[in-house]
Amino acid sequence: MRVLILNGPNLNLLGKREPVVYGDTTYAELEQLCHRWGGELGLEVELYQSNHEGALLDRLHQTEADFVVLNPGALTHTSVALRDAVAGVGLPTIEVHLSNIYAREEWRRRSLLSEVCRGVISGLGVQGYRLALSAGKELFPGG
Amino acid sequence: MRVLILNGPNLNLLGKREPVVYGDTTYAELEQLCHRWGGELGLEVELYQSNHEGALLDRLHQTEADFVVLNPGALTHTSVALRDAVAGVGLPTIEVHLSNIYAREEWRRRSLLSEVCRGVISGLGVQGYRLALSAGKELFPGG
Amino acid sequence: MRVLILNGPNLNLLGKREPVVYGDTTYAELEQLCHRWGGELGLEVELYQSNHEGALLDRLHQTEADFVVLNPGALTHTSVALRDAVAGVGLPTIEVHLSNIYAREEWRRRSLLSEVCRGVISGLGVQGYRLALSAGKELFPGG
Amino acid sequence: MRVLILNGPNLNLLGKREPVVYGDTTYAELEQLCHRWGGELGLEVELYQSNHEGALLDRLHQTEADFVVLNPGALTHTSVALRDAVAGVGLPTIEVHLSNIYAREEWRRRSLLSEVCRGVISGLGVQGYRLALSAGKELFPGG
Amino acid sequence: MRVLILNGPNLNLLGKREPVVYGDTTYAELEQLCHRWGGELGLEVELYQSNHEGALLDRLHQTEADFVVLNPGALTHTSVALRDAVAGVGLPTIEVHLSNIYAREEWRRRSLLSEVCRGVISGLGVQGYRLALSAGKELFPGG
Amino acid sequence: MRVLILNGPNLNLLGKREPVVYGDTTYAELEQLCHRWGGELGLEVELYQSNHEGALLDRLHQTEADFVVLNPGALTHTSVALRDAVAGVGLPTIEVHLSNIYAREEWRRRSLLSEVCRGVISGLGVQGYRLALSAGKELFPGG
Amino acid sequence: MRVLILNGPNLNLLGKREPVVYGDTTYAELEQLCHRWGGELGLEVELYQSNHEGALLDRLHQTEADFVVLNPGALTHTSVALRDAVAGVGLPTIEVHLSNIYAREEWRRRSLLSEVCRGVISGLGVQGYRLALSAGKELFPGG
Amino acid sequence: MRVLILNGPNLNLLGKREPVVYGDTTYAELEQLCHRWGGELGLEVELYQSNHEGALLDRLHQTEADFVVLNPGALTHTSVALRDAVAGVGLPTIEVHLSNIYAREEWRRRSLLSEVCRGVISGLGVQGYRLALSAGKELFPGG
Amino acid sequence: MRVLILNGPNLNLLGKREPVVYGDTTYAELEQLCHRWGGELGLEVELYQSNHEGALLDRLHQTEADFVVLNPGALTHTSVALRDAVAGVGLPTIEVHLSNIYAREEWRRRSLLSEVCRGVISGLGVQGYRLALSAGKELFPGG
Amino acid sequence: MRVLILNGPNLNLLGKREPVVYGDTTYAELEQLCHRWGGELGLEVELYQSNHEGALLDRLHQTEADFVVLNPGALTHTSVALRDAVAGVGLPTIEVHLSNIYAREEWRRRSLLSEVCRGVISGLGVQGYRLALSAGKELFPGG
Amino acid sequence: MRVLILNGPNLNLLGKREPVVYGDTTYAELEQLCHRWGGELGLEVELYQSNHEGALLDRLHQTEADFVVLNPGALTHTSVALRDAVAGVGLPTIEVHLSNIYAREEWRRRSLLSEVCRGVISGLGVQGYRLALSAGKELFPGG
Amino acid sequence: MRVLILNGPNLNLLGKREPVVYGDTTYAELEQLCHRWGGELGLEVELYQSNHEGALLDRLHQTEADFVVLNPGALTHTSVALRDAVAGVGLPTIEVHLSNIYAREEWRRRSLLSEVCRGVISGLGVQGYRLALSAGKELFPGG
Repeated sequence: MRVLILNGPNLNLLGKREPVVYGDTTYAELEQLCHRWGGELGLEVELYQSNHEGALLDRLHQTEADFVVLNPGALTHTSVALRDAVAGVGLPTIEVHLSNIYAREEWRRRSLLSEVCRGVISGLGVQGYRLALSAGKELFPGG
Repeated sequence: MRVLILNGPNLNLLGKREPVVYGDTTYAELEQLCHRWGGELGLEVELYQSNHEGALLDRLHQTEADFVVLNPGALTHTSVALRDAVAGVGLPTIEVHLSNIYAREEWRRRSLLSEVCRGVISGLGVQGYRLALSAGKELFPGG
Repeated sequence: MRVLILNGPNLNLLGKREPVVYGDTTYAELEQLCHRWGGELGLEVELYQSNHEGALLDRLHQTEADFVVLNPGALTHTSVALRDAVAGVGLPTIEVHLSNIYAREEWRRRSLLSEVCRGVISGLGVQGYRLALSAGKELFPGG
Repeated sequence: MRVLILNGPNLNLLGKREPVVYGDTTYAELEQLCHRWGGELGLEVELYQSNHEGALLDRLHQTEADFVVLNPGALTHTSVALRDAVAGVGLPTIEVHLSNIYAREEWRRRSLLSEVCRGVISGLGVQGYRLALSAGKELFPGG
Repeated sequence: MRVLILNGPNLNLLGKREPVVYGDTTYAELEQLCHRWGGELGLEVELYQSNHEGALLDRLHQTEADFVVLNPGALTHTSVALRDAVAGVGLPTIEVHLSNIYAREEWRRRSLLSEVCRGVISGLGVQGYRLALSAGKELFPGG
Repeated sequence: MRVLILNGPNLNLLGKREPVVYGDTTYAELEQLCHRWGGELGLEVELYQSNHEGALLDRLHQTEADFVVLNPGALTHTSVALRDAVAGVGLPTIEVHLSNIYAREEWRRRSLLSEVCRGVISGLGVQGYRLALSAGKELFPGG
Repeated sequence: MRVLILNGPNLNLLGKREPVVYGDTTYAELEQLCHRWGGELGLEVELYQSNHEGALLDRLHQTEADFVVLNPGALTHTSVALRDAVAGVGLPTIEVHLSNIYAREEWRRRSLLSEVCRGVISGLGVQGYRLALSAGKELFPGG
Repeated sequence: MRVLILNGPNLNLLGKREPVVYGDTTYAELEQLCHRWGGELGLEVELYQSNHEGALLDRLHQTEADFVVLNPGALTHTSVALRDAVAGVGLPTIEVHLSNIYAREEWRRRSLLSEVCRGVISGLGVQGYRLALSAGKELFPGG
Repeated sequence: MRVLILNGPNLNLLGKREPVVYGDTTYAELEQLCHRWGGELGLEVELYQSNHEGALLDRLHQTEADFVVLNPGALTHTSVALRDAVAGVGLPTIEVHLSNIYAREEWRRRSLLSEVCRGVISGLGVQGYRLALSAGKELFPGG
Repeated sequence: MRVLILNGPNLNLLGKREPVVYGDTTYAELEQLCHRWGGELGLEVELYQSNHEGALLDRLHQTEADFVVLNPGALTHTSVALRDAVAGVGLPTIEVHLSNIYAREEWRRRSLLSEVCRGVISGLGVQGYRLALSAGKELFPGG
Repeated sequence: MRVLILNGPNLNLLGKREPVVYGDTTYAELEQLCHRWGGELGLEVELYQSNHEGALLDRLHQTEADFVVLNPGALTHTSVALRDAVAGVGLPTIEVHLSNIYAREEWRRRSLLSEVCRGVISGLGVQGYRLALSAGKELFPGG
Repeated sequence: MRVLILNGPNLNLLGKREPVVYGDTTYAELEQLCHRWGGELGLEVELYQSNHEGALLDRLHQTEADFVVLNPGALTHTSVALRDAVAGVGLPTIEVHLSNIYAREEWRRRSLLSEVCRGVISGLGVQGYRLALSAGKELFPGG
């Protein structure tokens, strides 16, 4: 069972900047954690991060994963293209946010993506990825 | 380590009505699942459901739990009183929704509670409770 | 054939206060009228009034009526819980308002309930209850 | 005692198109039903339908009825002229809608007419006309 | 020099209904007044009133007047067709309202027509017509 | 195969007024062009223009065409009645606008009709009619 | 019979700047015209212009005129104080605008003053003052 | 002369939680203060606090006080039922808020209650109750 | 201990006009009352009223009072300058309104000032000044 | 005569996913169709599709086509950059949508691009491209 | 070459109050800086500050400067009169704000003035004046 | 001291297209000017322009400049990703626009970036870059 963890713009800065908002785990550490959590759940994990919306779309179009864990970063609030890609590709997708977006600026409380995702996990830091992997395994056994 | 799982109006109907939206697990089964999951995590679980906003407030004021898992049901969108109680009581709280509220009617996409909760898990069915218990144990070790 | 007539907050004040808006029939008289009208139509009528939203939900959850006549009073404009209860319980429901809510304050013109009710009768005073009973008998013969 | 039943644009299509929304009674059958119901209540019924707003205004200006039952059709949401005519003519008027307009598209939930009508009956199909006739007889004995 | 005075829906009721709002001059008296005022100013006056938007458009398309005095009645707030006709025909037009529309219901304060008229006179009763004739003569000497 | 080309208010002014916006083809010339284009495509073309909304509804109710090409003129933005007639009659309809309504005043960018039409062609002048005829023939072969 | 003509901020620039919008009559010429028109109507005219809102209020509080002609200039859209002064002083007031404010920027189309004035004349240039004097004499004979 | 002091949801937490916002006086101390202040003014004071909207309505319906001092807590922003009860019961009522609600979150700045209260005192801490008692005695001598 | 009572535009009309809204105490009487109430509380009272926003700013900039009682009149809803002056000067300020602004026109319910004031007293007539003086003495002992 | 057909994000998925919405023609087939239609019209057709907004901008900046047929895909609703590029490059452009965007989600009904395009063709499937090519040849003979 | 530097309400408090927001340079020091910077650029600088909107208008009407540097202070968000004066006087004007108004309260982010100014400099403290003088000299050599 | 000048989409078209809006300096000339101005101020200037949002993010993440001058072009109004990158990278940034965005289309007046920039310079053409360099040197001496 395979899972694609897709991370959007600026997530490469993780742990280096604004740790008050996003925590002090670096992106490299997050990658390690996801691989470890995936291993414990028997999931084959592939991670991809890009600051380019188009590159995220290309990757999502090509994936052969059974489900997707998606942290769209700033594209959460602006990218209809990513939304349409999730809907078009049709893989079950769980949206994850490190910070609690519903407790931040007004405009950050709305996700264009959530409507086409199966569920959303927000505000639980890097644990959100662990929970999403665990939920995906439970809920999408047939991919 | 203790956790209060607080469920709002109409959740007693769970599994009996509108299973397409809320799944077919009954409320009694949800209670059993939560106790079992809590047991596996070493958490002491207390559950409370009421259709009376005031009763939910009273219970929240009196709890001695270390953290709270809150499914406010329909009060999600209307109860400033519950919001203020969560903020006033000051216990770390994770908001859970069975359905993906962000993919439903426009007015159901907004929670008055999320701003005062640590995190939100939405759309993952009864698994949401399991994830919330797991996250709470990890994130609020000192209550 | 049974019908539950459910009356929301402040309807117990009927006829005693603000007769210009709500008429001068008292709540006790309304009860008598509904029983008489029900009798004429061969309907078994049960009436319930409460100022407590939770109590209205509890009653609605437990009813064994074939259809419901609902005057939500002030909850018309605020109670998602009552709306979800009507949808969840699934009984055909006719919404009744004594005054013409569409000719009052802007915010009173919108009912959260109407979307899940079969029909609405507004502004025809206590006659509205008679009409709702008559319509319910005609339209929901099988409950 | 006389009543004018005024029906707006497209109601002549009744029963022929979109029966899921408007029922399968044809306009000719509705006319017969209204005359029969009027007869039972001792009311002299005149019916008029037009697709021309101006023709509806002309008829309303000239009527000598004691009260009016008005189904404005699509003009419900757009015609200030019809609203002003109802207010200007000053006859007690009951607004009727076959479908439950409050459960349809957002913009269909608002009636420009309701504010100047005595009451509104919506969503109860052709029964709405019967109820309106019955209510009118009861409430406007002196026209 | 010729002027067309065009009056919209319900203005035929003038003086007969709601005199508190619109005054007690009848439409027939208004016609006489306009002819007299026109005569005093050396203007050839033609008056036309209709409850049919289409008839007003037809008349406006065909007129050979030098300028237009337009009281659109209820169409003030709803008729893009009348607006486009005024713009399309290209004759200088003065909009007149008997009542002060800016002191009435919120939605009555906005005219779709004003943007394509040269000027607006509102709230001065039938005097508004006299002023419009006087202004038109002064401002549009060449039609 | 028959097609009804229905043109709304003020289109009779075509070519005579505001040529900058609407082009300099007259309505008579447009009629000729449509008949010629229809002939080339093997379509039987009937054209109807009216400034009366009710007359447009009447014609649409009675047509026996296989599809409709509709330029609603100013009714585009105001006529729920025309919208409901298109939906009620159920013939496949293509909406055409001479000017690019999406590049004009804010309120002109919204069409009440588009939601019930199969497609929209806007801003391509009288060529829009040619394209609509061509598309209709291709897309609605069975009417 | 006395009339106060009150002119707000920037009207002293009249005729010197932006003649395309406001015409080329200077403020001094406007004063002369108003005195002449007043004389012809048998009215005692006093004119006051100030760029200071407070000074306009002071003057309005002290006037002994029978009615007021008010061109609030830019204060039209911003001054609740001037509005309250008009309402507080209680003299019948006619609002005048040189340009047609309803055909200008969106925010300029709304006057805070109109609701407390008897009528409004807009877009007829300096003729607006003449018409207002004439209307005032006719409508407020007793001040 | 009697006064009912009615306190809404969460006010029982007073002084224990969020003292920065609400001060450090406990609810028990507030009760003592109100009785003392009432005594000094010769008022018979009854206090009631509940987290249940319905219980507040019941109490308000039954009171025999001459006036009411009402701190609706979180219901300030959500309870049409409480608003209608205040209007229905008809006793003069002064609304009190400990914090300055107009300097808090946007949605907290609007009270549904104020429109039916005689006056509002906000932001002056527990002193607000003293002032309300003093004002009530002065303004509502006859209850 | 000194207090500045600052009164905005039109308050000089007090008691002379619109007594239904603002009461029948004149401004001169209000001055006397404030001096008497101040004397009873041991406060040195200075009063200032102006119709000029700038004059109010100048006075506020120069005051040496320990706290301010401010009735901004119509500037309540429009003056960012007064708001910034209150914030800039930094003296504790209590906002007072004679009428209950929250029960008046929609736009009058919002105060630009409240956000920078310590508290607000509204709707209690001239008693509001007495309460503000009393509260100020209690709450701002050190100025 | 040359034409650039520019296709935005996710259009490469055409025919493979969501055929109910977008039809079952694949992108490769669309390319063939466009070349064939172009050939029939004597147009030299170049096609370009990218999921990268920046790549679409680069291509548009460099094109030497005489006109452009643009299907912006999801960028329709979000890309000011693409809009500015169309305006900046200055080539006549026809916007094409496969589905009828005006009958889809509210936010999909608005195109940022239409204001700078000559015309729009929406809802006519792949035929839209044929019509756009035909219209472009007719309307922009000189490029 | 002459420049008028016009400063609005409360700027006289500069450096004395809220230095966190506005910096600690006093108004007197700002005046000195502006004269020095003007001298270095060969500009004749006149400065004027007032808390009276009317006084600012009067000064702007009378100036003989070649361009204007305008810090409207709180009038930025409220004064249509100042906006119209800038437009009416017609001198090239650069708007300056000490703080970054686009990073402050929502309503402070909108300037009524910017639309009629040539440019805006915001958030760069007193340096903003230096830059405005430098830009003005470069851009408006002929005044 | 180093500065990164970052230019967004379409700025490569500078001077070639729409010179009325953006001036006739080409992008190559702007580069030369910036290097010259930087040299005069003792700043080491690097310039980067891209039509790809992702490429701008990548460059900003990697820069070692002491401050940033940012002209986001069309991304000003749409890119949360660029906003978050500016906030995340934490370098002091001055936003520059060639045209006065506050005097253009409504939606162009709002920048998503300004809230995280130190200051904004808009409408002063290429001079804006010179001023930004000068201000940056003065205000961010320590980077």
